[in-house]
Amino acid sequence: MPYSYGVMDGRLPDGTPLGPDFALQDAADYLKVLTEGIPEVLRSSNVEGADVGSIGVDFTSCTMMPCKQDGTLLSALPEFAGNPHAWVKLWKHHAAQPQATRINEVAGERGEAFAELYGGGYSLEWFFSKVLETIEKAPEVYAAADRFIEAGDWLVWQLTGQETRSECAAGYKGMWIKGRGWPSPEFFKALNPSLENVIAEKVQGPLVPLGGRAGLLTEEMAEATGLTAGMPVAASIVDAHAAGPACSMAQSGRLAIIMGTSLCHMLLGDEKKIVEGCGGLVEDGIIPGFWGYEAGQAAVGDIYGWFFKTGLTAEIEREAAGPNMAPEDWLTEKAALLGAGQSRLVALDWWNGSRSVLMDAELSGVIVGLTLTTRPEKIYRALVEATAFGTRVVIDAFESQGVPIHDIVACGGLAEKSPLVMQVFADVTGRQILLPRSFQASGLGAAIHGAVAGGHYPDFGAAIGSMAGLQENSCRPNPAAQGVYSKLYAEYLRLHDYFGRGANDVMKRLRELRSE
Amino acid sequence: MPYSYGVMDGRLPDGTPLGPDFALQDAADYLKVLTEGIPEVLRSSNVEGADVGSIGVDFTSCTMMPCKQDGTLLSALPEFAGNPHAWVKLWKHHAAQPQATRINEVAGERGEAFAELYGGGYSLEWFFSKVLETIEKAPEVYAAADRFIEAGDWLVWQLTGQETRSECAAGYKGMWIKGRGWPSPEFFKALNPSLENVIAEKVQGPLVPLGGRAGLLTEEMAEATGLTAGMPVAASIVDAHAAGPACSMAQSGRLAIIMGTSLCHMLLGDEKKIVEGCGGLVEDGIIPGFWGYEAGQAAVGDIYGWFFKTGLTAEIEREAAGPNMAPEDWLTEKAALLGAGQSRLVALDWWNGSRSVLMDAELSGVIVGLTLTTRPEKIYRALVEATAFGTRVVIDAFESQGVPIHDIVACGGLAEKSPLVMQVFADVTGRQILLPRSFQASGLGAAIHGAVAGGHYPDFGAAIGSMAGLQENSCRPNPAAQGVYSKLYAEYLRLHDYFGRGANDVMKRLRELRSE
Repeated sequence: MPYSYGVMDGRLPDGTPLGPDFALQDAADYLKVLTEGIPEVLRSSNVEGADVGSIGVDFTSCTMMPCKQDGTLLSALPEFAGNPHAWVKLWKHHAAQPQATRINEVAGERGEAFAELYGGGYSLEWFFSKVLETIEKAPEVYAAADRFIEAGDWLVWQLTGQETRSECAAGYKGMWIKGRGWPSPEFFKALNPSLENVIAEKVQGPLVPLGGRAGLLTEEMAEATGLTAGMPVAASIVDAHAAGPACSMAQSGRLAIIMGTSLCHMLLGDEKKIVEGCGGLVEDGIIPGFWGYEAGQAAVGDIYGWFFKTGLTAEIEREAAGPNMAPEDWLTEKAALLGAGQSRLVALDWWNGSRSVLMDAELSGVIVGLTLTTRPEKIYRALVEATAFGTRVVIDAFESQGVPIHDIVACGGLAEKSPLVMQVFADVTGRQILLPRSFQASGLGAAIHGAVAGGHYPDFGAAIGSMAGLQENSCRPNPAAQGVYSKLYAEYLRLHDYFGRGANDVMKRLRELRSE
Repeated sequence: MPYSYGVMDGRLPDGTPLGPDFALQDAADYLKVLTEGIPEVLRSSNVEGADVGSIGVDFTSCTMMPCKQDGTLLSALPEFAGNPHAWVKLWKHHAAQPQATRINEVAGERGEAFAELYGGGYSLEWFFSKVLETIEKAPEVYAAADRFIEAGDWLVWQLTGQETRSECAAGYKGMWIKGRGWPSPEFFKALNPSLENVIAEKVQGPLVPLGGRAGLLTEEMAEATGLTAGMPVAASIVDAHAAGPACSMAQSGRLAIIMGTSLCHMLLGDEKKIVEGCGGLVEDGIIPGFWGYEAGQAAVGDIYGWFFKTGLTAEIEREAAGPNMAPEDWLTEKAALLGAGQSRLVALDWWNGSRSVLMDAELSGVIVGLTLTTRPEKIYRALVEATAFGTRVVIDAFESQGVPIHDIVACGGLAEKSPLVMQVFADVTGRQILLPRSFQASGLGAAIHGAVAGGHYPDFGAAIGSMAGLQENSCRPNPAAQGVYSKLYAEYLRLHDYFGRGANDVMKRLRELRSE
């Protein structure tokens, strides 16, 4: 289902130029997925609409937008079509750093309860950073918006005709705490006087727990999709968190890693523990009955992709042409032939900043150990190793605070397609890496949510046992490689702390140089 | 004049495999340059042999070999043809690190006078490191050798029939000190008992000063070359040092930089000052009447070459094909469009270790500041900037010790061919960079030595005034770029000291990982 406008980061459809770090979408494209995508899926899979029992929805987050009281998009109104802040702000819209900084300052001063649950700080990607950006940059959009809402919740609203909010997104991205609710009007007033009543006025709708029923499919949507009117629709779930049940996460101690352009770490704990750089901690946030911990790495597949774009030489392209391989595969094969430590390089994987544990978007990447004999496959291997060290930092942070990690389930595109990456992650973390039967983890997870919401299973445990499962083969750590990586990891950590904890803020100063 | 065997770093002509870090040559190739090269040059330049008045010889150093008393190469004897240590050890033969380390230990313990003149330490590339390697690894070669000699001195010997030693090479590479001579037998004995009498037994021949006459061309060589028997032949001069007079170095305070795969810095001083990382300090070593300071960077053009091999993507190759440019030129053009600091990167230029000022071959390269938007031209520009920072470190070391540098003359391939490199060096050093009229600086310098030795000029000053000269256009620093580079240089220095002065020896530990 190609989107009409894809990700808008240069101009709006009417030609209005966008500032740096903007990433917008048109929510009309999301509706097309329902009204054109669902019928097409039913057709191509030979499933009758009547055989579908309930619906689950997962969505990237925080992807959010302003709309009117009836769900009408502000961007669809002629008077706002040329205003960037009226459109969907995609999760990776990165223009709200000053607002996130301000939120963290105010939350710290006031001792807000949510602050400790957001690890190193409330992110520029999240809900109220984007709301605050809107009120500051486009007060007319803020004034005209009856609602600010997560795209997943908006989509469920379109399906059911009822406005609700997912506890998952509200908890992980929206400062909402189970049993406590949203932050107070005083907090929002301290951010901006006009924001005082943002919850009461613009963040409406009952909160729905995981696997809860947000509503029933409307007649209109039933007709448009080919499904049955009145079927249950589950509360929206954040895409990464949806992957949890698909990775057979039903007990504490299992780390699910969603491995794609970036990495999300999902972990269930029995207790609430404050862990450095754990980006989100929500009770019942991934699977009911557990504390759901979320951490992440801002760029992983993106770093490999960068290298495939920046480091794939013409020579490699010619070499790969012989056996008729893709240059990326050829390079990967050469990198896999190297042993642990044979690159003689160590890198910091901060090409897009550090999400966990340092929560610092202004950090950048480093490669140490380059010589005249350094070849592209060595650099590529060092980048893979660096991303695995990044995950080990996350694991160590959890375990040092008493949140144990017994094994790892990896899903997402990298888990499916890169045995080299999986082996390096196993060797570096010293843990077995299991793979789910289905790599469409977020989609399967959303279906599990839908099945629970539809009453097809009594609880998540039963749904997971029936609908999810793991592959028989797994990736086990190689003891010799583990030994070398222990040493390399010590080097990584030393550089991590030197560049990341204030001893040398060169990365921040380099960013400033640009703007002179 | 293509060499039959070029640089031998894998096998000897008979197939004997060579160890890592070996770099050998066959001196028979050098003779071909005389007997085939000189006649060809005379022919192609329409110069009569009788019109040539004297000969100067420059040579890389320390390139040395063992030979018999009559100059016969040990490698030419059947019993030694399969012994790597019987061949010419090229300057970049790098297998004598343990021997260099031992020499520095013993020299330090004994307080040898030469030690302070060799900056951070006597190099693994130099004369007695290679001799000590031979006696330890191949005592039979040491025993059979009547002489160990610099290749330049050996070549002069072939021309004149008289064995002499150049004060230049002896001073810069051989521990010899003007007015004091060679180190004592006790010193050599402390290195290895069998080495006690190495000077008396195997390092014969009178020392000849710069521009001095080593001998006269023999009948046999006159016939072979087409030149006139009996013409004066100057003492051999190290190639980099030969460039000095060609760069119009006739007063103190002028820094000549020979810019190629590596960089040599040549400077005249009025006094003897001990400067950190100044690789050599020899009285009358570059131009008589001055103290000749030598420093260097182990890899400069080599780093650019590495990047052209490792970082030139297929995409760049395709882009360059449009305007029918070499990909290297296309990348250089893009890098030149970036301003100072716009790469947002800072690198340490230690791809082949650090010669000056740290004198540590085990250091390696670093790039800091990589992001998903880092493009190849940014990396290339950062590498050029890093090499310029390396030169600024050298300049600062000299000036901090009271050896002033007023201007710079750059020669060598990079000076001739890369305006981008020249401009960055001017901006980073804050100094005007002058260019010589002839970029064949070492060749012209050798000719100046020959002219002085031949009595065609009374002294170097007169010869330089007549034979050398500078171009009218020069490269001047841009004040705005200078300001940005002052800040970036501070970053470079901070990283330089962190990785280079013991705070984090990660580079050395990475090297060790390899050997596990």
